[in-house]
This record gives sequence, C-alpha cells and structure tokens, in this order.
Amino acid sequence: MTDEEGLADLLERNDLRGMQDWMDQHPPYVIADELARMDGVTSVVPFRLLGKDRALAVFEELEPVDQQAILAGLRDQALRDLVEEMDPDDRARMLGEAPAKVAKRVLAGLSPRERQMTAALLGYPEGSVGRIMTPETVALGLNLTAEDALRVVRDKGPDAETIYTLPVVDVGRRLVGVVELRELVLSRPEGTVSGLVDTEVPRVRATDPAEDAARLMRETNILDLPVVDSEGRLVGLLTIDDAVEVIEAADTEDVARQSGASPWQGHYMSASVWQLARARAPWLLVLMVAAVLTVNVLQVFEATLAEVTALALFIPLLVGTGGNAGAQAATAAVRAIAVGEVRGSDLVRVVWRECRVGLALGGMLALIGLVVGVFVVGGSIALIVGLSLVAICAWAATVGATMPLLAKRLRIDPAVVSAPMVTTFVDATGLMIYFLTARAVLGL
Amino acid sequence: MTDEEGLADLLERNDLRGMQDWMDQHPPYVIADELARMDGVTSVVPFRLLGKDRALAVFEELEPVDQQAILAGLRDQALRDLVEEMDPDDRARMLGEAPAKVAKRVLAGLSPRERQMTAALLGYPEGSVGRIMTPETVALGLNLTAEDALRVVRDKGPDAETIYTLPVVDVGRRLVGVVELRELVLSRPEGTVSGLVDTEVPRVRATDPAEDAARLMRETNILDLPVVDSEGRLVGLLTIDDAVEVIEAADTEDVARQSGASPWQGHYMSASVWQLARARAPWLLVLMVAAVLTVNVLQVFEATLAEVTALALFIPLLVGTGGNAGAQAATAAVRAIAVGEVRGSDLVRVVWRECRVGLALGGMLALIGLVVGVFVVGGSIALIVGLSLVAICAWAATVGATMPLLAKRLRIDPAVVSAPMVTTFVDATGLMIYFLTARAVLGL
Repeated sequence: MTDEEGLADLLERNDLRGMQDWMDQHPPYVIADELARMDGVTSVVPFRLLGKDRALAVFEELEPVDQQAILAGLRDQALRDLVEEMDPDDRARMLGEAPAKVAKRVLAGLSPRERQMTAALLGYPEGSVGRIMTPETVALGLNLTAEDALRVVRDKGPDAETIYTLPVVDVGRRLVGVVELRELVLSRPEGTVSGLVDTEVPRVRATDPAEDAARLMRETNILDLPVVDSEGRLVGLLTIDDAVEVIEAADTEDVARQSGASPWQGHYMSASVWQLARARAPWLLVLMVAAVLTVNVLQVFEATLAEVTALALFIPLLVGTGGNAGAQAATAAVRAIAVGEVRGSDLVRVVWRECRVGLALGGMLALIGLVVGVFVVGGSIALIVGLSLVAICAWAATVGATMPLLAKRLRIDPAVVSAPMVTTFVDATGLMIYFLTARAVLGL
Repeated sequence: MTDEEGLADLLERNDLRGMQDWMDQHPPYVIADELARMDGVTSVVPFRLLGKDRALAVFEELEPVDQQAILAGLRDQALRDLVEEMDPDDRARMLGEAPAKVAKRVLAGLSPRERQMTAALLGYPEGSVGRIMTPETVALGLNLTAEDALRVVRDKGPDAETIYTLPVVDVGRRLVGVVELRELVLSRPEGTVSGLVDTEVPRVRATDPAEDAARLMRETNILDLPVVDSEGRLVGLLTIDDAVEVIEAADTEDVARQSGASPWQGHYMSASVWQLARARAPWLLVLMVAAVLTVNVLQVFEATLAEVTALALFIPLLVGTGGNAGAQAATAAVRAIAVGEVRGSDLVRVVWRECRVGLALGGMLALIGLVVGVFVVGGSIALIVGLSLVAICAWAATVGATMPLLAKRLRIDPAVVSAPMVTTFVDATGLMIYFLTARAVLGL
C-alpha cells in the first residue's frame, strides 16, 4: 500500500487486506469522508470490515443519507447492534429522513427503552429543537449539596450524552436553571446546588426552530442549551456539537439558495449528475421565463435600437454591472439577516443606506465609463451610458437589499431571494432605464 | 418605559434611568447587540452605566472593532479593570486588530502575568490557531491516579478557561493525549490517567490556520482541540466557542467574496455608507472593466447585428441564463471545497460532472425556448437561441466549477472566484457562442 492510494482505489482492486490496513491507520472522520464519496452500494463493503466500536464511530460521522445507504446493506443483527448503540438524537435525525420501510426495520430492532426515546424525539416537528436534542440528561434537585450532586453525576452520568451542563429542576420537573460541572467540581463539598445554580441561562421550547436555538447558543457562548416543554418542564439539552452542525447545514442551504439552486442532501461528490441538475433546474427555468421580460422590453425599444445600433453594444455591460451591484447588496442583506444583525424593522434604514451606496458606486463607475466612452463611441452615447450607470447602480442596490428584507417581513426565508433573482429583475428594469435615458438624450 | 422602546431611543432622550432599567432587564448578548448597532462614540454612554461584572460580560460579546470603540471612551482605571479580567485569547484577538496606540495603552495597564500571556499570543501570525487558543489549561501527568488528577483540577481549575478537556503531557511537556473531565469524574478513584488517556485525539500546531483547525473540530465533534508547538509541546487549547466564531466569520467572508465584495469588520448596521461602498467598489470596477470585453465582442459582430436586429432582443436573456448557470456551479463548488467535500485532486471528475449537468440543464431550457421562440420570432432565430442555450449552459457550468478548483490548486482562496466573476467571464464568451451560432445558421 502506497501513501497515495485511497480507500476507493483499494476497493476497486478488491484488496480487503489493504482496506483493513488503510482504515486502521486513519481516524473515523477520515474514513467517513471516504465512504461518503462512494456511492451507497459500494460503501458497505469497507464498512463491514470495521470492528464494532470503530464501525459505530465511523457511522456517527456520516450524514443521514449516507447512513441509510449503509444500513440497507447490513444484515439484521449487525444493523441492530449498530443502531442500539447510537445516541437517541442521532438516531432520530437519521430516521426522520429515512423511508418508512427503513425506519420500521430499525425501530423493530431496538430495545424498548431506546425505542421509546427515539419515538419521542420523532414526535417533534422536522427542523425543531426536539428532533436533535438529547433527552438523556443528569438533572439535579435544588437542595443537594455539591458532594451529593457529584454522586448523582457519577451514578447517572454513564447514560447521559453530556454531564458538563446539569439542569436543575424543582419538584414538578420544571427547569430552574443549570449548574456547570465545572462549578460543581471547583466548589467546596458542602456548597449547595441552590448556591451554584445559574437561573438566568437561556432556554428554548422543544418545538422552537433548531436554527434559531443554535444561533442563540453561538451568541451566548454556552455549551448546552436546556430544552423545555410548554409548561417549562425539562425535556432535554441541545449540545454544542449538534448546534454547530445545524448552523453549518443552514449556511450550506443559504449558500445554495443564494445561487438559485435548491439544497440537496448529502455529499457533493456522491450526488449524481441528475440530482444536481434537478436541484438547479427549477430556479434556472423560472429565471429564464422571467428573463423573457428583457426580450419584451427590448421589443418595445426595437425602433430605437434599429436606428442607433451602437446602443446594443452596451447592453451586456450595463445589465451585467447592474446585476453585480444588486447581487452584492442582496448577499450582504441576506447574511446580515441570517446572523441577526438586521431585523425586519430596519427596512427603511437599510433601503436608504443601500440607495446611497448604489449612488456612490454608480457615480464612480460612470465617471470612468464616461472618460473611456468619449474616446470609443463619442459624446452622446458615452453620456447615455454614464447616466444609466448611476441610475442602474442606485436602483440595483436598493432593490437588492429591499427584496430579502421584504421576504423576511412576509415570513419567507430571505435566502430564497437569491442573487440571480435580483439580477434578473434588475436586468429588465435596467434596460428600461437605459433606453429611456437614450431617448431623452438623443431626443428620439 | 414601554416594551417597544429600544436602548437607542432611550439614549436619544438621554434617559439614563430608563437605560439602566432596560439593561437590567436584558441579558448581556442582547445589550451587546444593541451597542453594536450604535456608532462608537454613543455606545460608550450606556456601557458606562453597567456594573463591573456585567460590563465584562457585555464587552466579551462584542466584536473587536466595537470593543475598541468602547475602550476609546473609557478612563484609564475603568479600561484597566475591564481588560485585566478578559480571557487572554479574547484580549489578543481584540488587540491584534487595534491601532498600535490603543494596544499600547491596554498592554501598559495589565498585570505582568496577563501581559506576558497576551504578548505570547500576539506573537503568532494573524489568522493562526495561536492567536485564538487559550494558553491557560490544566495539564496532567501520565502517572497520576484519577483521584490525584481531580485534585490537580480543583487546584488549577479556577485560572483555566476550560477544565473539560485535560491535556496529558510527558516530562518534556510534550502532548501525549487528552483526558476528558467526564472520564475522570466517572472513573474509579484508583483509576489512572494513563488508563484513561485518549492518545488518538487530533492536534494542531499553533501556527496552523485557525479556520482549518475549527473545521477539524466540527468534523470530529470534539469540545477542545490541543495545540502544540513545532516540537510537539503543549501550548494551549482551542475551545469550541472560539472555533464556532472562526467558522462563522469565515463563512461570512466567503459569502461576501462570493458576491464580489471584500469582507468588512463589524456590524452591518454600524458600517458607514462609505465603508460599504469601499468594500464593493474594487470588484465592481474590475468586473465592469472586464465587461468591456462584451462591448468588444459585440463590435466584432456589429455588422451581423445591424443586419438582423432581432438578434439583439435575446442578448440579455442568453447572457443572464448563462450567468445564472455559471453562478450555480461556482457556488456549489466553492461551498463543497469550503466544507471539505471536494479537493484539488477532484478537478477532472468535477469538470466532467458539471459539463454534463450543464448539458442537461441547457437541453431542457432549449426545448422550452424553441417551442416559445417559434411562435414569437420564427424558426431560424428560435433555432439559434435554442442551440446557443445548450452550448452556453454547458460552457457556463464547466467554467463555473473549474475556476474555484483551479484557484484552490494555485493556492488562492476559492471564495475569491466570485459568482459575478464567473458571470462576467461567461457573458463575453457566451456572446461569441451566440453570434457564431447565428452566423452558421443564417449562413452569413
């Protein structure tokens, strides 16, 4: 085995021994990455060579869609062993996206305790905190001493996903606050939970959107966020590793949407050409149909165009620059909304800012355009191009920033307002600005 | 005070009492967000009203650029108190971006111990792990029992930023592995560190890029990543909260770059119109100059255009659709590279995939374009538009995916290959495809 050879190459040569060696020498997340790059059917072969503990570690690093591919290729006993050992929240996430047949097969193999926990998580709506929280926590009573509390942690800790954040509950299991294990370990043994508890810690409902909860954790720098039901009773903890995954998935989705493609599940390299095309086709189609508007606008001005063909030369430049200015403003606005810097109520302020930014940018470009244009196409066309640049840039930046904010106000995901959408809209209106300016300047 | 009134409104009315009440009723991260939305000079006024502990909590939630604005408005004693209490890594991050005058004023006020730690962190290159790691860790020796180790944790823990990950070192302070506090607490007292240590844990050098380290943590789901020097000696820990911040900042930067704007420091709402314009102007200008290429291309085909004016009608539609297809491919490629799904060596595979995706998309659009076109502009122009759509989409998707991968191979940040850059390049080449097709079909 050379250093250069990947798992896929070894698999192709059917070199079982080589694959085993390769997997022994690489950490689970690297193995998972290699498996995710293969298609489902083949990835089972190396997976089966893994020992039980290592198989679980690799499996947990995979995305749900890749996990399902592996499960489909496992025998019942191997599947049961694997799924029984998973954390309930990881299991629920995987099953939430699996076909009913697979979910049934998995649930049937679980022990009653694990099955019950998983089913409870699956009862929460998709994309909610409940789906990804861990229900296995170590909860403390208010009147324990630090020493007693540590005993509880030692006792119940082995079953819990985390023991670093210890929710404190009253007799009705209502959440009072949390104690960090750090405080407990560093406290005097006779200190009390009621003296250590932080009651100001933020909390979320299990039915709240997972993305909002994750961003809250990012803002407040906490490791685990307590999750409660509608009566304020503790139901679980959202851990930071799951929150980070939620944020990354949401960002990937936003990025895809920004380019006018629907997000797809799973690894880029294992997505088929057909899957990629399907993710992009709908918006591309909608945008092309919208672009027919530009044909209509040009038809209106066809007489002007026939008279002064030179006007056609600058269509792609003006349309392109307007599109770029609009895309910049839209991208900035969508990101500012996503990270919480801009709210729906900032609409007027943002529009006014972006309008001025657009004017400044347009003015600068126009100056350069004018100077160059005078030498290439002469005064009047250069003047038309310059004036149009100012107006189009101001208009594009204003529209670009307004559309995501309007979407936010209408409770549509702002990321749906993609840059291409803004660009296409600005194209048609920009052409109108251009030809109206041309008519005015040329006196047509 | 009504519920609707924000801190900014109260400040405008100079209602000190109202501000105090408002800040008492909101958690630090909400106060920090409000301050970040004000400009620097005004944000000091409410900040000064905060008690000492609360001031620190709010201050730690601010971005470096906003922190500097606050510092500039504080008296020496207040500044000293505040900065002395900060974690060394937060302090180093703030100072790394501060003007030399501010940095000097801050360092001068620190105690020798804190000053030394901060200076050490500032010695690492910008954007490296060393700049943001915490040097205050609780390191354990291999031959301790669990009970002894817990005693060390209780002893040194109060000074450390985290005690959940305990690096294990040999006599030369070389990193052997880590023990999680969880293992230690749950272990039998007579268990040993050498029995609990995980030696397979990933580690990074202090000079490695912070973004790579953060993504590694995300992939491996670990809370704290040990940081070593070139000889493998422990120098600190990268904690998950800092890693999440690094990832979010990197994503925001990528998003800005994708739209052809340079990223700026700080809050969107507190950035001035001038700052926003400056961030966007360079690329917009470069792209406009590149777009002059489209004028040149059209000049070459001006005779064809004058003969068949109807060809001009479809310029924005074709150019726009090509740009959209290219932007989709580029965005997908940049994101796949950023999250590590695609590597430089995947170039050929990715190009071949995207070329087929583009052909599939172009074929679909062409079919629709043909049918509509035949009725609107007649057979030959419709045929030209249809054929061009197929060629342009395939070309755009290929170029869009290739450019970020080439950048990666040339060790340029792939995110610099913005969607507008791809779009502008595809515009000019797309026009050539269009007019060459037109000449061939019309026999000109």
